[in-house]
Amino acid sequence: MKVGIINVTGYAGCELARILYQHPEVELTSVTGRSAAGQKLGDVFPHLSPLDLTITPELEGDLDLVFSALPHKASAEAVIPVLEGGVKVVDISADFRLKDAAEYTQWYGVDHPDPSYLEEAVYGLTELHREEIRASRLIANPGCYPTSAILALAPAVKLGLIELDIIIDCKSGVSGAGRALSLGTHYSEVNENVMAYSVEGHRHLPEVTQELGGLTSQAPAVTFLTHLIPMTRGILSTCYARLKDGSKTSQQLRDLYREFYADQPFVTVTGQPPQTKQTLGNNYCLLHPVVDKRTGRLMVISCLDNLVKGAAGQAIQNMNLMFGFPEDLSLKALAVYP
Amino acid sequence: MKVGIINVTGYAGCELARILYQHPEVELTSVTGRSAAGQKLGDVFPHLSPLDLTITPELEGDLDLVFSALPHKASAEAVIPVLEGGVKVVDISADFRLKDAAEYTQWYGVDHPDPSYLEEAVYGLTELHREEIRASRLIANPGCYPTSAILALAPAVKLGLIELDIIIDCKSGVSGAGRALSLGTHYSEVNENVMAYSVEGHRHLPEVTQELGGLTSQAPAVTFLTHLIPMTRGILSTCYARLKDGSKTSQQLRDLYREFYADQPFVTVTGQPPQTKQTLGNNYCLLHPVVDKRTGRLMVISCLDNLVKGAAGQAIQNMNLMFGFPEDLSLKALAVYP
Amino acid sequence: MKVGIINVTGYAGCELARILYQHPEVELTSVTGRSAAGQKLGDVFPHLSPLDLTITPELEGDLDLVFSALPHKASAEAVIPVLEGGVKVVDISADFRLKDAAEYTQWYGVDHPDPSYLEEAVYGLTELHREEIRASRLIANPGCYPTSAILALAPAVKLGLIELDIIIDCKSGVSGAGRALSLGTHYSEVNENVMAYSVEGHRHLPEVTQELGGLTSQAPAVTFLTHLIPMTRGILSTCYARLKDGSKTSQQLRDLYREFYADQPFVTVTGQPPQTKQTLGNNYCLLHPVVDKRTGRLMVISCLDNLVKGAAGQAIQNMNLMFGFPEDLSLKALAVYP
Amino acid sequence: MKVGIINVTGYAGCELARILYQHPEVELTSVTGRSAAGQKLGDVFPHLSPLDLTITPELEGDLDLVFSALPHKASAEAVIPVLEGGVKVVDISADFRLKDAAEYTQWYGVDHPDPSYLEEAVYGLTELHREEIRASRLIANPGCYPTSAILALAPAVKLGLIELDIIIDCKSGVSGAGRALSLGTHYSEVNENVMAYSVEGHRHLPEVTQELGGLTSQAPAVTFLTHLIPMTRGILSTCYARLKDGSKTSQQLRDLYREFYADQPFVTVTGQPPQTKQTLGNNYCLLHPVVDKRTGRLMVISCLDNLVKGAAGQAIQNMNLMFGFPEDLSLKALAVYP
Repeated sequence: MKVGIINVTGYAGCELARILYQHPEVELTSVTGRSAAGQKLGDVFPHLSPLDLTITPELEGDLDLVFSALPHKASAEAVIPVLEGGVKVVDISADFRLKDAAEYTQWYGVDHPDPSYLEEAVYGLTELHREEIRASRLIANPGCYPTSAILALAPAVKLGLIELDIIIDCKSGVSGAGRALSLGTHYSEVNENVMAYSVEGHRHLPEVTQELGGLTSQAPAVTFLTHLIPMTRGILSTCYARLKDGSKTSQQLRDLYREFYADQPFVTVTGQPPQTKQTLGNNYCLLHPVVDKRTGRLMVISCLDNLVKGAAGQAIQNMNLMFGFPEDLSLKALAVYP
Repeated sequence: MKVGIINVTGYAGCELARILYQHPEVELTSVTGRSAAGQKLGDVFPHLSPLDLTITPELEGDLDLVFSALPHKASAEAVIPVLEGGVKVVDISADFRLKDAAEYTQWYGVDHPDPSYLEEAVYGLTELHREEIRASRLIANPGCYPTSAILALAPAVKLGLIELDIIIDCKSGVSGAGRALSLGTHYSEVNENVMAYSVEGHRHLPEVTQELGGLTSQAPAVTFLTHLIPMTRGILSTCYARLKDGSKTSQQLRDLYREFYADQPFVTVTGQPPQTKQTLGNNYCLLHPVVDKRTGRLMVISCLDNLVKGAAGQAIQNMNLMFGFPEDLSLKALAVYP
Repeated sequence: MKVGIINVTGYAGCELARILYQHPEVELTSVTGRSAAGQKLGDVFPHLSPLDLTITPELEGDLDLVFSALPHKASAEAVIPVLEGGVKVVDISADFRLKDAAEYTQWYGVDHPDPSYLEEAVYGLTELHREEIRASRLIANPGCYPTSAILALAPAVKLGLIELDIIIDCKSGVSGAGRALSLGTHYSEVNENVMAYSVEGHRHLPEVTQELGGLTSQAPAVTFLTHLIPMTRGILSTCYARLKDGSKTSQQLRDLYREFYADQPFVTVTGQPPQTKQTLGNNYCLLHPVVDKRTGRLMVISCLDNLVKGAAGQAIQNMNLMFGFPEDLSLKALAVYP
Repeated sequence: MKVGIINVTGYAGCELARILYQHPEVELTSVTGRSAAGQKLGDVFPHLSPLDLTITPELEGDLDLVFSALPHKASAEAVIPVLEGGVKVVDISADFRLKDAAEYTQWYGVDHPDPSYLEEAVYGLTELHREEIRASRLIANPGCYPTSAILALAPAVKLGLIELDIIIDCKSGVSGAGRALSLGTHYSEVNENVMAYSVEGHRHLPEVTQELGGLTSQAPAVTFLTHLIPMTRGILSTCYARLKDGSKTSQQLRDLYREFYADQPFVTVTGQPPQTKQTLGNNYCLLHPVVDKRTGRLMVISCLDNLVKGAAGQAIQNMNLMFGFPEDLSLKALAVYP
């Protein structure tokens, strides 16, 4: 099958290209990028030289599926015509994640280009929506933070183990902020430094609330705070909520989590606290529930690579489902450790 | 006055020497270290060459004050004879921090060498115990995490602003783990990596509970989780607790915090989220309270340098008080940024 | 075919396992390690959990090839019996790299366990010895520094372009120092720091001299200095030598280098200065010759991943040749960038 | 005395402010910056809040000395009027470093705004030009790379120990590239990466040639290559040249270097290979000569903090001389290690 990437020049875009290079069923035939149009892909990203592609301003040729790695709003504007031309779409932007157009406007500060697609789009957190993804032509690929947080909390929420008053404290590497320049991602400012950011509310919060709310009858109250860590890749989210039954043990929680995710190829419940480095470059999410016995609180630690399971890897996992390929095709690489 | 350092060869010990080098009232005359005894201090730590000292197995000469940077248990055993010889002591270990000897045994796994000193020792969080410190001969210098967390929460607890069900999520640089070798501090394991550790309970928790409990009539319930971050120096603690009055604004909280710390030379309430880098090498603690309006929860972000305000700097701040020097003597250096 | 790894618990060993996991013709059936014997491989290295192997004290079962990732001396002692049992060997240690047993003794400080194998062993720098490797049963896999330096200089030496008075200034990530603990690889010591080490002579020098000398009739004089850089993976070597014809241009040099390496799948001559990050996790060596017009000196910049092309990747490349597989089997992954 | 800083908003500018804060004879009264004019200095750089200054578009008030931290060309244009107003100037830009206006044009791509000052200006490498600096009103503060390289080579050149065919291989932290944004200083691009840059010739080369040439009768041939290292501060330069007498030992070289720099408060000849971290935040340059006995080549390793001895610290050292203060006033802080 033939695949295109809109905006290959960001980190999610080039990560899609990296992983697709090894996909036996996919031919990547068209990659776009505005500022770099006309350049060889390998001139912009030397590690992609073996792909031997040229960046064009618009998609070219017949395609079976298109990934969009554009920023929000621009992405919806670009992919709706593609979709209407009969091509399946996995959108890595935030444009089709929220079901409520008003909430989109509130968090993204612009009106949605075409809210009529919001209902149809499937939120592409594979582990929660696998069957809908198989049948869909439009996938809203989740944000990196929401992927880590929702996977960490879904069992506890769905099984009714916790009170729905939740704190999510996230630590992210810098690549999550993308390839666009800013003082906040300038090496000398970020290195040897930790800071909280978006303290008044991060745009990934409504996705988390929407999806956790869908697992239960009550809207959860979520405090969600993000921190920037001096490393390139990786997210570790630490989630806190009070257990309804404070006598439950860590081992019981791990058993429940393992059962919940028993058939999921890319979710592992670990016996030891996981490390982001154990996911570098691969599509796994590692989960570790622990009970704080002194307070009866559940803590769930979640690790993933923000550019793989948090973006390009999950997008390809969804593509595999949409086209009937094995779910892990081209996604079986082990983490690059150390 | 003449000062000695027991165990100068760890990071807290050599940081004491670095700062004391610029202290106009102090002559550092004796430094000890077991494995390095007989070596020049500048051979072990080239940056300390200008001090021109030799490491000895035991303290030498008449001294007015001794800092101990030994591990727990060994520290109490070493400083009690010093104290009984009429020399003032600032102990950087955990040996005199907890008032309850049973709790010491529970968390440190050994019986306290001499619990009779626990009542006399003053917990050296300068901002909370300044007057007692002035009058004391034995200071239990606080842990790095507790310093950041207690300063972050003291106003909210003391002023009765929050419910006493508190979560403290800490992110620390690696120097907090000391100079002893372990796989957990091996460069290739720590770099480009974030992990939670001591998930079953960190030894710094009982200090936090003791000190916050001392500010109110009710024992607080504290969940305390620590994370290792790929940087050398710095702690950022994010503290979460429900406001009793959820309508309070971030600005109101900052005003209350500023008032609470108005006379403290080394605590700054910041208008923007602080960064650990803004404290690198200096004795400040930066605090930033924010109200999560959606949930009525208070979040307080706290930054400091774990080796300065979290160890050697606060120890010298306490020494200055014990000897009637200006509190900030030799501690006025600005952070080394970027 | 069935493959074993002796000493899987070092970084080269676990990197072999990572890459072999994707090799369609190889079944990794036996992995050894002294301190970790009896443990699941996935307990020591969580990223290798999908391999589902247990570490044993000795190799087990019938094997077609064994990789040894033991330290020098121990490696020869372990692999000679394997070899004599009819199993092919790729030795990642230094034990069979030098043809001259006296030089081995001089640099490694011990006598070689069995010098009779030194002549038979093939130095496994694939690009220089491909045909001998195909026919061999004992490969001495090159060191990481020599791989980068010899590939950088081989065309210039072989084509007689330079005077044989060469300076090699190497910058390496910390994983090259292995997983054994030392103050020199302690995070807080290495981070935010650059230093030269082994200034009196690095053990990788004689390999370089031997192999470059084999390309010409005259023994080259080589100054070889190594530096430790605060990153985990990657080597950049900068090589300096005077051009015999100082009027040659950078472009002419690149053309000559491209021609020299035209049939080599894993050597790329780049048009821009290469970066180590462009090789992270993959088997490429990137070369960039530049002429310093002001002095008529050739500078060649060489980048590779010390654990892949500098160790495990090249070992598997050699295995592929020894067994008639396509040379790039399981080695086609692109670099993990950024 | 009253001092001003033009362009305090770059890294050299804010480092000047940091160090001057502790200077007992200096009152910093005026700081300028174009984009940040009108803002409090502490809002742009929170670590400078204690200075309590407001950034203005132009210098204000009577001043005794002005530091300029502007880029080249803009700096000359700004400081010449200051100078003509009777105020002494230390210029951190490159504008007055080269004696030859044609060479300035060649390397900086613009004509010099006023070459008539080139002869008068004193190249502010303190150790080579101390007496002229004392008497000067216009100091051209050296570049960070030249400071490290010239100090490394001056004894060997001046004493006639080496052949004047020199290679300088420099490794620099990222802060040397300043605070202006570029893809080359974007965190995700620089972290875990080493690269050579300016391979066709770095602008700091002519300073090195000029100053080394001034120590001897013959113009040296210098190959000068710079590398970017994933750390914030620090330069390590490795210098290579053939000894005229190849039988000299490392110890003899160190003795000659120690004698050469015997009266220099900020140059230390070390017995062990130095590390950039040993200079973090302080004004020292550490030198370590080693003889490569196999080739008769001298290698000199040189470490300093590019923002201190490589910029702001040396500028203040020069100011101290110009005003008759002790040379080390406000510059005695030890390195922040680890």
